[in-house]
Amino acid sequence: MIDDISMKIQAEKLIRMALAEDVTGEDVSTASVLPAYVRGTADLIAKQAGVVAGLPVFARTFAILDEQIEIKFFAADGDRVEAGQLLASVTGDMRAILTAERTALNFLQRMSGIATETARMCALLQGSGLRLVDTRKTTPNMRLGEKYAVRVGGGGNHRYNLSDAVLLKDNHIGAAGGVRKAVEAAKRHAPFTMKVEVETETLAQVQEALEAGADIIMLDNMSDAEMKEAVRRIGGRALVEISGNVTEENLARLCGIGADIVSSGALTHSAGILDLSLKHLHPVAEHKG
Amino acid sequence: MIDDISMKIQAEKLIRMALAEDVTGEDVSTASVLPAYVRGTADLIAKQAGVVAGLPVFARTFAILDEQIEIKFFAADGDRVEAGQLLASVTGDMRAILTAERTALNFLQRMSGIATETARMCALLQGSGLRLVDTRKTTPNMRLGEKYAVRVGGGGNHRYNLSDAVLLKDNHIGAAGGVRKAVEAAKRHAPFTMKVEVETETLAQVQEALEAGADIIMLDNMSDAEMKEAVRRIGGRALVEISGNVTEENLARLCGIGADIVSSGALTHSAGILDLSLKHLHPVAEHKG
Amino acid sequence: MIDDISMKIQAEKLIRMALAEDVTGEDVSTASVLPAYVRGTADLIAKQAGVVAGLPVFARTFAILDEQIEIKFFAADGDRVEAGQLLASVTGDMRAILTAERTALNFLQRMSGIATETARMCALLQGSGLRLVDTRKTTPNMRLGEKYAVRVGGGGNHRYNLSDAVLLKDNHIGAAGGVRKAVEAAKRHAPFTMKVEVETETLAQVQEALEAGADIIMLDNMSDAEMKEAVRRIGGRALVEISGNVTEENLARLCGIGADIVSSGALTHSAGILDLSLKHLHPVAEHKG
Amino acid sequence: MIDDISMKIQAEKLIRMALAEDVTGEDVSTASVLPAYVRGTADLIAKQAGVVAGLPVFARTFAILDEQIEIKFFAADGDRVEAGQLLASVTGDMRAILTAERTALNFLQRMSGIATETARMCALLQGSGLRLVDTRKTTPNMRLGEKYAVRVGGGGNHRYNLSDAVLLKDNHIGAAGGVRKAVEAAKRHAPFTMKVEVETETLAQVQEALEAGADIIMLDNMSDAEMKEAVRRIGGRALVEISGNVTEENLARLCGIGADIVSSGALTHSAGILDLSLKHLHPVAEHKG
Amino acid sequence: MIDDISMKIQAEKLIRMALAEDVTGEDVSTASVLPAYVRGTADLIAKQAGVVAGLPVFARTFAILDEQIEIKFFAADGDRVEAGQLLASVTGDMRAILTAERTALNFLQRMSGIATETARMCALLQGSGLRLVDTRKTTPNMRLGEKYAVRVGGGGNHRYNLSDAVLLKDNHIGAAGGVRKAVEAAKRHAPFTMKVEVETETLAQVQEALEAGADIIMLDNMSDAEMKEAVRRIGGRALVEISGNVTEENLARLCGIGADIVSSGALTHSAGILDLSLKHLHPVAEHKG
Amino acid sequence: MIDDISMKIQAEKLIRMALAEDVTGEDVSTASVLPAYVRGTADLIAKQAGVVAGLPVFARTFAILDEQIEIKFFAADGDRVEAGQLLASVTGDMRAILTAERTALNFLQRMSGIATETARMCALLQGSGLRLVDTRKTTPNMRLGEKYAVRVGGGGNHRYNLSDAVLLKDNHIGAAGGVRKAVEAAKRHAPFTMKVEVETETLAQVQEALEAGADIIMLDNMSDAEMKEAVRRIGGRALVEISGNVTEENLARLCGIGADIVSSGALTHSAGILDLSLKHLHPVAEHKG
Repeated sequence: MIDDISMKIQAEKLIRMALAEDVTGEDVSTASVLPAYVRGTADLIAKQAGVVAGLPVFARTFAILDEQIEIKFFAADGDRVEAGQLLASVTGDMRAILTAERTALNFLQRMSGIATETARMCALLQGSGLRLVDTRKTTPNMRLGEKYAVRVGGGGNHRYNLSDAVLLKDNHIGAAGGVRKAVEAAKRHAPFTMKVEVETETLAQVQEALEAGADIIMLDNMSDAEMKEAVRRIGGRALVEISGNVTEENLARLCGIGADIVSSGALTHSAGILDLSLKHLHPVAEHKG
Repeated sequence: MIDDISMKIQAEKLIRMALAEDVTGEDVSTASVLPAYVRGTADLIAKQAGVVAGLPVFARTFAILDEQIEIKFFAADGDRVEAGQLLASVTGDMRAILTAERTALNFLQRMSGIATETARMCALLQGSGLRLVDTRKTTPNMRLGEKYAVRVGGGGNHRYNLSDAVLLKDNHIGAAGGVRKAVEAAKRHAPFTMKVEVETETLAQVQEALEAGADIIMLDNMSDAEMKEAVRRIGGRALVEISGNVTEENLARLCGIGADIVSSGALTHSAGILDLSLKHLHPVAEHKG
Repeated sequence: MIDDISMKIQAEKLIRMALAEDVTGEDVSTASVLPAYVRGTADLIAKQAGVVAGLPVFARTFAILDEQIEIKFFAADGDRVEAGQLLASVTGDMRAILTAERTALNFLQRMSGIATETARMCALLQGSGLRLVDTRKTTPNMRLGEKYAVRVGGGGNHRYNLSDAVLLKDNHIGAAGGVRKAVEAAKRHAPFTMKVEVETETLAQVQEALEAGADIIMLDNMSDAEMKEAVRRIGGRALVEISGNVTEENLARLCGIGADIVSSGALTHSAGILDLSLKHLHPVAEHKG
Repeated sequence: MIDDISMKIQAEKLIRMALAEDVTGEDVSTASVLPAYVRGTADLIAKQAGVVAGLPVFARTFAILDEQIEIKFFAADGDRVEAGQLLASVTGDMRAILTAERTALNFLQRMSGIATETARMCALLQGSGLRLVDTRKTTPNMRLGEKYAVRVGGGGNHRYNLSDAVLLKDNHIGAAGGVRKAVEAAKRHAPFTMKVEVETETLAQVQEALEAGADIIMLDNMSDAEMKEAVRRIGGRALVEISGNVTEENLARLCGIGADIVSSGALTHSAGILDLSLKHLHPVAEHKG
Repeated sequence: MIDDISMKIQAEKLIRMALAEDVTGEDVSTASVLPAYVRGTADLIAKQAGVVAGLPVFARTFAILDEQIEIKFFAADGDRVEAGQLLASVTGDMRAILTAERTALNFLQRMSGIATETARMCALLQGSGLRLVDTRKTTPNMRLGEKYAVRVGGGGNHRYNLSDAVLLKDNHIGAAGGVRKAVEAAKRHAPFTMKVEVETETLAQVQEALEAGADIIMLDNMSDAEMKEAVRRIGGRALVEISGNVTEENLARLCGIGADIVSSGALTHSAGILDLSLKHLHPVAEHKG
Repeated sequence: MIDDISMKIQAEKLIRMALAEDVTGEDVSTASVLPAYVRGTADLIAKQAGVVAGLPVFARTFAILDEQIEIKFFAADGDRVEAGQLLASVTGDMRAILTAERTALNFLQRMSGIATETARMCALLQGSGLRLVDTRKTTPNMRLGEKYAVRVGGGGNHRYNLSDAVLLKDNHIGAAGGVRKAVEAAKRHAPFTMKVEVETETLAQVQEALEAGADIIMLDNMSDAEMKEAVRRIGGRALVEISGNVTEENLARLCGIGADIVSSGALTHSAGILDLSLKHLHPVAEHKG
């Protein structure tokens, strides 16, 4: 979701806000020791193995402070990298490099941590036909980057937000007076371009959902046997999502259910960062050109 | 850092942005089943034990969508809560409750996760005289909330951003031509209200830092023996910070060094969330009054 | 899409911007004749028959300038109103009423014009099973209000924007190398919660679209006979949308095709306003309360 | 009002908002079929005859997404164009072209529609000495573009907003206690750089307005005979504006009154769009240079 | 220009920005000593004699941080106050009072300083028929408040900005090829609601300006004799403005010229503040109400 | 605080806002006489002697309206310039030069005025060991530029805002229950990277402050003899700041006290501008290159 194009529409503003969060007036430390422009270069190094995600955001953060910055990439988003691997070199105004460093890394490390965790979980699903997707349990004002990172890590995205798909949960069902009524209300109200998903807790609810024409049926709090029976009854007439506590142990078991989709909030809310570092900053001669 | 007052200055904007991130047009699911105002109530329940942080942000998220919302708190920021514990009840427009739920929880869960992890680490330092603080390794545009959560969890804050304290790292020292020159440059350049901290890797650098009048000396990449010797030489003339890989195992060892401060990026960049849930939403009779 | 809830998330900002567009410093005319608060009341009157849409935006515009404003509604969004009909009375600070009047009416008249035109076209489809929807041909920064107005007028919404559904047009198909490849690419790339629609110009393309699993098939530039044949072949396995020049004459003809959806850009880009007026402003005694 | 200069001050923000309205995360359709940069070109074609307005906004919309975009213009704002005429070619990143297309056209079509309608009405006034101007009945947050379009179409602008000229309407006159008092109040209160216009409904009011020194007198709800008498009495001592229902039939009649200005809200609130289209997108070889 | 109404449109944003400029995270000092709500009251006292301006902005600054704040005014904008005089009492959350104090005073002191200086200069013009006005030489992003203050002090406003009146200076005249051509170009280009002012340096230019129909003629760099002759020739057919170095000594002399307007940049760019202070903050018992 | 780097983070937004404050739609005067691009050049001339500050902001203001603008500087921030001296030449789109002129000068003149006044006062302190610093008494939303100007003029900065240092004033001390308690509360609450300053009015309070470990002690309302005694007792264990009415006469006297710092609000709140002017605008041949 973040390429050269979409960066300019939504990510740009978030990067500028993050820089302003880190620099109220000036970067006092850098201004103390570097009163004027000095051309320098630094290396982006992985300190852990993992999957990198967010290099366009990383690059843009520096470019906002120095439009002449030159960034050479030795890896691309989605690449698996090793500890110690050189990912990029950043060359330009040393003041810009020092001032933007932390903000650039804060984006990149968090996104890469999510991509890495997603890739780890996806590997467990290899060949199972079950697809791992994220949820809306993202850090406020970081959803764009976090959902992109899930995709870079090999996962898929659930709906982006409350406005681009219908997902009827227990509270909606309660308010509507049952699964059938909730699905019917949504099919009447929602744009025809939008899928309707509904949460079910019993086989009777699955039946109602199917009959009301739900596009996606989520199985919640069911035993494995119930879930298998639900999948059998649905028989391809709707996509089947299972959610809940996705752990290494659970995943193997869930692969056997026959569902299409498994969603995991932990991908975005609890993945640690991937440790990355900007190293070896040193002055270089001015570029000819 | 987030109370009734500061909320209105900086947090308000971030909460509104997070709501706009989750609702482009309308919450289609809720609008499908709740076409008009219905007064309802829901319970905020802890699903894990931990330390809660962010209740004012949680409350404000709902209040933006329904100024008449009533929130009763049964816990306060900083309280240790148990799994299953009722933390608050939220009563008002059911549409507002459903639409704001995820955004409110995304703030609260992340902040509580950080407070919980911080409290866990602080417990290990109990009585040691060593103080645990955060770093600038925060999620972009969430620093306010994340640094607040560290404090709620019992930790302290390092500088907020590049503009409110000097921290001279290896790159600054390199640019200045040595520890002494870097510290002197900063003391000349920085406002007199600002402390100057410098990173040192050798006892010789510690000596330079001291002589140049650094307010805080960070010991980096030193052996325990070197660190102890550094502390001895500094002799209270500057605060001593140790940084690096703060783990349960390391902490015990670090307590013996005699330093004042230990900083840990992991508090903010890699703490998982504290699992919390909004439950039992149901309509209630209109409030008299 | 605009109710008490969603207003606060997206519409509020647009209303405030529109007020700032109309008042750089002060409303000089009003400030000249009304130097201080005077309580007054005015009537919102329809000057043409039509369908009203946008009353919550109308009301909010005044409330931003006077939180104590009282607005009594004698009609609701979606009501068919007659020329001369009283729709609402607005009572509060006369300065706020005069200053907000034009902005409030500019929103309401445009939205009501769209609702009126939509209702007129929908009446022609009554009983046909064909549903009229809008497009993305909206006035920049007014999409929220314009798409809401279509709904109020009895129409449906097509996708809100480029991020909430896939619609593959000739250029996308060309870039992908054919309808099948385009649909397959989208089904791989898009979130599973999102429907995939594709434009087709021949029956062969319809066939490809069906086989590739498109959720919605748009028939473009086909003769009536071709369209009927396309509908027959699709046989309910995908929704069928027809687009293009929707006029009164065409609609009758299109009803016979058997398609599900007909979309019309003209609903939003070329409906004139519904003429409404704020009349009879006069001072009133202070409210006891 | 929109040239290379003013674009950067006010229009830029509105274009960026409009792009963000259309792209929450990414353009899913385009991203599905064009995963990377491909250089392409497309033609902007008029599908109806009319007067084009807004080409700088059209161009800027693409340039925000691809700074390297090249736009060759074969027509300029204010040109009368024929159906089928090539207006411009757009060459650059095909993803940027596809993603920005609708937003760029939404601006251009609306503005060109207004210019076309304005030109049509102005033609009816040719040689009459009566000048056609717009009003503040513009689409919220589109006034800059809409008033510019009126000018491109050959019309003139009435005041931009409530802060740059005085226009005393019946409600202001009522509040002040008469035309004379209202005009006098405004002349005292308003900056000396600002003209004062007043609405009059009788010849007696015209007389008061003149004596009070109004710069512009608007004749409202008068018969043709009354208006002619008013013009005679004013005798060039104030500009004379007539407003109201400006239609083709009315205009001929109004030309005979002898007034200076006729204003029409319909120019901006009810002109349909001019149909324009971006066609023939296809890849091209990379530009040398 | 700043009353209860216009405050909400333009001033609100500037006040919020100013608070955010002063509080990045929290007010550390206040948070240290006042961890929770305590109701208190403080007095706004004049420390110098002068004219007060900006009380609505002062009040709003506190209200943003505590909606329950109660402010009792003992003076109003435009009042001449004496050193030691009590102007207002502020009662509410002591934390809000302490945190907003400086921002509120920074607005009020600057605006009152300008009002005071304006009143001093206006007193020198008493009875002369010459009116003192401001210029666009205002502090960036403070024009609204500074021009309001000039008015409160008894002065008038020149145009608000480049978009609400024409003022042709030497550079415009040069570009147009003379005074006549410049005025004619402006009369063609500018909205008919806008006055055209032109700068002249010779009597010949004054003649050209008159003949071209300028509404306001500015006399620049002329001797007193020339200015008097210019006024005589203009004979009321245009307003006459004199500008330049407005000092106490000059003003007496300028009064004799017979011009209508004298403008002074110094009113806004070089007036010092009026010294005001918030004093006697102390806790009070909770209000019954 | 404003260099090429920090400009992009915080100053950019303020410059764009200031341009939008001055141009609502278009610069009508310039658009009247310069309908299209003409390359021209103008000179920035000092009309008074003083110290120039703000040239990067001046330059950026033009560059926002014309990225191709070329600015040659013949002076740099901090230079003492003479009346009549050429400071810079600005070459580019004449429309951009005319439209940005006032905004650019409003920034530059105000900042240079502050730098000039600061330099004048600093000269009086030459060799005294006493350092002159600013306060938070800055123009709202101009603090960045005003504090930068103080530094350019040779002064130092006090804290930037309420969030980057602790300064406990009489109200905080009252709330805490004394100097000692206030300092202790702050040392507990504030980040360890932050200095704690406290205001004292008696020698007893100085003693308390010292014992509680204040980093900076402000002497307020003391006689010279008391201040000297305070300095003696503090004996270098804390920095000593004196504040209050800093005038030429007072400064000589204050130099003898032995304090480290003297702060003055007047530097920012009451310095007049330095008079500068953009002159000799004329067309030039197009640049080759």
